[in-house]
Amino acid sequence: MKAAIFVEPKKVEVKEMPMPKVEKPTDTIIRVIRACVCGSDLWWYRGIAKRDGGSTIGHEAIGIVESIGEDVTAVHPGDFVIAPFTHGCGYCANCRAGFDGNCLNQEPGSNGGYQGEYLRFTNANWALIKIPGQPEDYTDSQLNNLLALSDVMATGYHAAASAEVKSGDTTVVIGDGAVGLCGVIGARLLGAKRIILMSHHEDRAKLGREFGATDIVSSRGDDAVAEVMKLTNGVGADSVLECVGATSAIEQAGQVGRAGSVIGRVGVPQTEPASNQLFWKNIGLRGGIAPVTTYDKQRLLNEVLAGNINPGKVFTKRFPLDDIQKAYEAMDKREAIKSLIIVNDK
Amino acid sequence: MKAAIFVEPKKVEVKEMPMPKVEKPTDTIIRVIRACVCGSDLWWYRGIAKRDGGSTIGHEAIGIVESIGEDVTAVHPGDFVIAPFTHGCGYCANCRAGFDGNCLNQEPGSNGGYQGEYLRFTNANWALIKIPGQPEDYTDSQLNNLLALSDVMATGYHAAASAEVKSGDTTVVIGDGAVGLCGVIGARLLGAKRIILMSHHEDRAKLGREFGATDIVSSRGDDAVAEVMKLTNGVGADSVLECVGATSAIEQAGQVGRAGSVIGRVGVPQTEPASNQLFWKNIGLRGGIAPVTTYDKQRLLNEVLAGNINPGKVFTKRFPLDDIQKAYEAMDKREAIKSLIIVNDK
Repeated sequence: MKAAIFVEPKKVEVKEMPMPKVEKPTDTIIRVIRACVCGSDLWWYRGIAKRDGGSTIGHEAIGIVESIGEDVTAVHPGDFVIAPFTHGCGYCANCRAGFDGNCLNQEPGSNGGYQGEYLRFTNANWALIKIPGQPEDYTDSQLNNLLALSDVMATGYHAAASAEVKSGDTTVVIGDGAVGLCGVIGARLLGAKRIILMSHHEDRAKLGREFGATDIVSSRGDDAVAEVMKLTNGVGADSVLECVGATSAIEQAGQVGRAGSVIGRVGVPQTEPASNQLFWKNIGLRGGIAPVTTYDKQRLLNEVLAGNINPGKVFTKRFPLDDIQKAYEAMDKREAIKSLIIVNDK
Repeated sequence: MKAAIFVEPKKVEVKEMPMPKVEKPTDTIIRVIRACVCGSDLWWYRGIAKRDGGSTIGHEAIGIVESIGEDVTAVHPGDFVIAPFTHGCGYCANCRAGFDGNCLNQEPGSNGGYQGEYLRFTNANWALIKIPGQPEDYTDSQLNNLLALSDVMATGYHAAASAEVKSGDTTVVIGDGAVGLCGVIGARLLGAKRIILMSHHEDRAKLGREFGATDIVSSRGDDAVAEVMKLTNGVGADSVLECVGATSAIEQAGQVGRAGSVIGRVGVPQTEPASNQLFWKNIGLRGGIAPVTTYDKQRLLNEVLAGNINPGKVFTKRFPLDDIQKAYEAMDKREAIKSLIIVNDK
C-alpha cells in the first residue's frame, strides 16, 4: 500500500509500505478515504521539530473499517468512521473527565500514518467515531466537514470551550488559520454574541465572517489591541481564543481580555508568558490537546450532520495522495488555509 | 492620631500623623478596631519590593465608620464594618463581572494606612461590608474571624474559586501560610471531599486539619509530588490551590494536577512558568487579586456569622499598635502564622 513519509525537512514523499496489521485486540485497520495536512505538521516539515526520516505522517482522516481486533465491538468492518488524532480508551480518569486527548492508556508513537491508504488505529473501540451510512451518501463538502472533525474543528472548539465562552460573550479569536477559523465556529456554537477575529488576510477574514465573526481586526500589535479595546468600550473581551501557538499571542490575549476572562489556547508549541499580567488581571489560561472523540460524540458530529456548521470550508486546496509534497508546500507557503488529500475517494 | 509607617527595610514604627479627612464624596473615615499584617507586606518589609519611606502601611482592618462623604448612603457613622483591601465601585464592568479587585474606578495609591487609628477608605459606598451590631456584641475570636474577611479568608477562597473546586473534588493546597490555610477552608466550602495540604510545619498542619484538610504531605519537591500521585492513584488532583506566589509552586501545581484540572493561584508576586506542561496536560491557570467585597457579601460574612468557619485562628500572635515592629518581626521570622494588631479594641 502507498503511504506518505517524511524524508527530510521540506521533503515528503509517497512510498510503497507494508500493509499495517491488527497488533492488539483493541486495534482496527482503516482504509483511508480522505486525509489532510495540519498546521502542526509544519513544525517538523520546516525542521523546527525533530522527526525520524522514513516515518509515516499525518494524523487526520476519515475512512472505512477494514478489520478489527477481537476486543473491538463498537465498530465493524465496512463502517464509515472519523479517525481522530486522539486515541482515548474511554475509561481512564482523564477520559472520564472529558480529556481523551490526555488518555492515560494511549500507546506512545501511535499517532501517525493517516496520510496513506491504510492506517493502524489504536484504542479503536472508544476513540473512533462512527458516521451513519457510507461515503457515497455524502456530498463532497459534507465529506470535508466530516474530515474536519478528526482534528481542526474539535481543536477550534476546544479553544472556545477552554476559554469558557458562554451565551452573550464578546469573544476575541487570535489566529486566522484553519484552527482559528474553526474557533470562530466553536465560539458561535457556545453562544458568543460578538466575535472579533484578528485577521490579516482578506480570504481568511471572509471565511471568518461566514463562520460567524462579527468584527475583523486587521491591524497588528499595539494597534490591534487598541482596536479591540475600542470595540469593547475599554473593558476588553469576556473570552479569548489563542489559536497561534506563540507566547506573544498569549501576551496579546492577556492584553485584550477583561478582568476575570479566560484565554483558551490550543496552539503548539507553547510556553507560558513571562509577564504576570494574567495574575494582575485575574485572567485564566486554559487549553491543550483537544479531546476530539469527546467533542465529536457530544456535539460536533450532530452539528455537521444537521448542516449547522461547515468547517470543511477550511480546505481551500486539494491534492491526490501522490502529490503529497505539493500539499505541504501549499500550507507552508500559505497558499492554502488547509490542504485536503484525496486518498481513496468513495 | 497614631499610625504605623514604613521607615526602611526591616524597620516600621508608629508615628503621630494628621487625621485623615473625607476628600471625595465617596470616601469614609473609619476608626480602626483591629488590623493585621499580610504575607504580602513582607515583600516591602524585606526590601524586595520598593516602598517610599514615611508611607502609611497595612491593608486589612475592621472598624467603626466615623464620617462619610455626601454620596455614601450604604453605611453611616457608627456602623461596624469590614474594610477590605479592595475598593470596588460596584458598577463598572469588572465589578459587575465579580472582580471588584480589578475595579476600573479604583483610586491609585488608596491602598494603605489600615495599621493606624483612623483610615480614609475610598469607594466606600459599595466596597465596605457592614457587620450587624457593634464590636462589643462579638467575642474575641469572632472579631478575628471578621477581620480575616478583609483579605486573607477572601484570598484563600479566591484560590479555591479560581481552581474551580467543585463538590467531590480531590484538591491539593500548596502553601501552609495564612492564605493556604484559608484556602483549605475555601476548598471545603466549595465541596472538596479530599483536601491534601502541603505543609512542612506541625502547627500549621494541625490548623490545616482543623480547617478541613484530610491529608498532609510534609515532604518537599519530587517526593511531595510522588506522594500526591500515590494518594490519587497516579491520576493527580482535580484542582490545585497555589498559595505561595512562586513560579516553582505553579510548576509543582502543574505536576500534581490531573489532565483538565485548574490551578487557582493567589500568591504575589508571580510570573508564569516557562515550562509548557500546563499545555500538554490541559491544565488551566486562574487567579489574581481576590474580589473581597464580592465574596464577603455573597457568602463569607454569613459563614462567619453562622459560626461555620473560623479563619481568625490564623492569628497566632497579637500586638498593640505601638509594637508594630514586633508584629512584623514575628511574621518575618515565621514565629506567627499571621500577626494581629489591636488598635482601638471595643
